[in-house]
Amino acid sequence: MRFLRIGPAGAERPALLLDADAQVAHDLSALTPDIDGAFLASLTPERRAELAARAASGELPQLPLPGARVGAPVARPGKVVCIGLNYRDHAEETGAAIPAEPVVFMKASDTVVGPYDEVLIPRGSVKTDWEVELAIVIGARARYLASPADADSVIAGYSISNDVSEREWQLERGGTWDKGKSCETFNPLGPWLVTADEVPDPQSLGLRLRVNGEVRQNGSTANMIFDVRHVIWYLSQFMVLEPGDIVNTGTPAGVAMGTPGQPWLQPGDVMELEIDGLGAQKLPVGKA
Amino acid sequence: MRFLRIGPAGAERPALLLDADAQVAHDLSALTPDIDGAFLASLTPERRAELAARAASGELPQLPLPGARVGAPVARPGKVVCIGLNYRDHAEETGAAIPAEPVVFMKASDTVVGPYDEVLIPRGSVKTDWEVELAIVIGARARYLASPADADSVIAGYSISNDVSEREWQLERGGTWDKGKSCETFNPLGPWLVTADEVPDPQSLGLRLRVNGEVRQNGSTANMIFDVRHVIWYLSQFMVLEPGDIVNTGTPAGVAMGTPGQPWLQPGDVMELEIDGLGAQKLPVGKA
Repeated sequence: MRFLRIGPAGAERPALLLDADAQVAHDLSALTPDIDGAFLASLTPERRAELAARAASGELPQLPLPGARVGAPVARPGKVVCIGLNYRDHAEETGAAIPAEPVVFMKASDTVVGPYDEVLIPRGSVKTDWEVELAIVIGARARYLASPADADSVIAGYSISNDVSEREWQLERGGTWDKGKSCETFNPLGPWLVTADEVPDPQSLGLRLRVNGEVRQNGSTANMIFDVRHVIWYLSQFMVLEPGDIVNTGTPAGVAMGTPGQPWLQPGDVMELEIDGLGAQKLPVGKA
Repeated sequence: MRFLRIGPAGAERPALLLDADAQVAHDLSALTPDIDGAFLASLTPERRAELAARAASGELPQLPLPGARVGAPVARPGKVVCIGLNYRDHAEETGAAIPAEPVVFMKASDTVVGPYDEVLIPRGSVKTDWEVELAIVIGARARYLASPADADSVIAGYSISNDVSEREWQLERGGTWDKGKSCETFNPLGPWLVTADEVPDPQSLGLRLRVNGEVRQNGSTANMIFDVRHVIWYLSQFMVLEPGDIVNTGTPAGVAMGTPGQPWLQPGDVMELEIDGLGAQKLPVGKA
C-alpha cells in the first residue's frame, strides 16, 4: 500500500495509491486529517485492508496525479534521525574509518519537502551535496527494544530520502555535523510511503541517484554496515522513536565529496533518485 | 508576561500568570488551543495587552497552581537547537578549545518535559550530567537575518532549559554529540515562557543549578562567548527558525564532567535550576 500527500505545501491532502503506476490517487481526507503519527499508529492489517477496499470501491474522491504537486508522504515528522557512514564504500570515499557502531546525527524536521520540490543551495554555500537513502517511517513507539527482531513491529514503511548536505558547514565549521544538515529544503522525502508489508526484504533494494542524467550513486541496501533492524534497535537504546518519525539509513558511494573534481550541486541542476519499489524523486536545484 | 501550561502530560491547558509569585493562573483555553508556534506568532504588544486585561478582569477561568502539574511552557517545539561550549569557563572545564564560531547541535524535540517532571537516567548510562541554560523561544520566522540586531524581532521570550547530557554517549561512542543529547526526558523546560519585553537585558541574568542542595553551577549570561542576538543571527544563516522553536544557548562551568570526582547524576538526586526573573525548576532524578 502506498500513501502520499497531494496539494500545495502546507495544505496537502492525505491519499492512497492502489498501484505504483496509477494516474489517480484516492483522497483519504474523510478518514484521517493527514498521514501523520496518529494515522500511522492506526495502520493494522485490518485497517489497511479496509482502506484498500474503500479506495477500490470508488467511494473515495479521486485526486488526479498529472500536474498535481506531491508533498512529503508524512506530515511534518517529530524528528529526523540519521545514520552516517553506513555503507562501507561511502565511508571509504570520505576518508572516514568504518564505524564500530552506528554514527547518529539529526536533521531539523522542517527540512522535509516533497519529492519534486526545488532544493535550495543555501546562501554562501559552495559544497552542497546529495545523498540517496532508504528512509524508515516509524509506526509505533520504540523504546529500549530487546533485540533487532523487535524492530519489525515499529516500522510503518519505507520511503526515499535525499539527505542533502553542505560539506563545508558539516565538516569544516566547528562542532557537529548538524550545521550542514538542516538547511532549508535539505530533506526531500517521497514520493510515497510504501507500507512494510510490501517491502519483504529492505536489505535487497537497489538505490540510484543521477545528476543531470549522469549516474552518481548506484548501490544496494544489501551493503549497509548496520541493517534496518539493527539501526532501529540501536536507536531505541538512546532515544524514544515515535510514530511519524523518520530514520535516514545512510548513503552509498558516489556523493560529490567523494567524486573526482567534486561536482558540487549548482543552480539549474536536476537530481533524480530511485529506490526499487519506492518510486522516484526529481528535484530541480535552485538557490536560496 | 508569563505563559505556562498546566495539566497532565499531553493534556496541558494554556495559561497566563500575572505575577511571578501568583498562586493562580488564568486559563487561555478559550482564546488559543495551546502555547504553540501559531500563538507565539500572534503575540503583538496589542495582543499581549488584551490578554493581560482579560486575565485581570477575572473573565478567564482560574487555574490554581498548588498541587497542579506544570508542563513545558511551549507545546512540542518543531526543533530544539543548541549551542555548545558557549561559556569560556565551561569550555575550559571540558578541555575543549574556545570555539571560533558557535558550535551547533540538536536535541530531539520530544525530549522536552515539564519543570518539575522526573528526569530519567537512561538504561546503561553511567555519565548522566546536567546543564542549566537560557532558552530562547522563537516567535517569528528567522531566515538569513541581515544582522544580529534583527534577532530581537524574532524572539518571543525566554525560559530555563536543562540540557541533560549523557557524556559517554555524547563523546565516547562515535559520531556526533546527538547520541548523548536526545534521551527520554533530557530537556526539562520552564516553568514559564517570559516574554522578551520583560527581559530587558538577556545578557545580565544570573543562572544557577544545585544538586541535592549543593551549588554546582553559578554563572551569568554576561559570560556567553556568543550572545543571544549573535546566536540567532548566526543560526538563521544555516537553517530556518520557526515560531515555537527553542534555542538552548549553552551552559556555564560546573557540570559533573568538569567537577572533581565527576559526581554524575544518580536516581534519587534532585536538581534545582534558576535563572533571574525566569523562575525555577525542581527535578527529581529517576531511572528509565
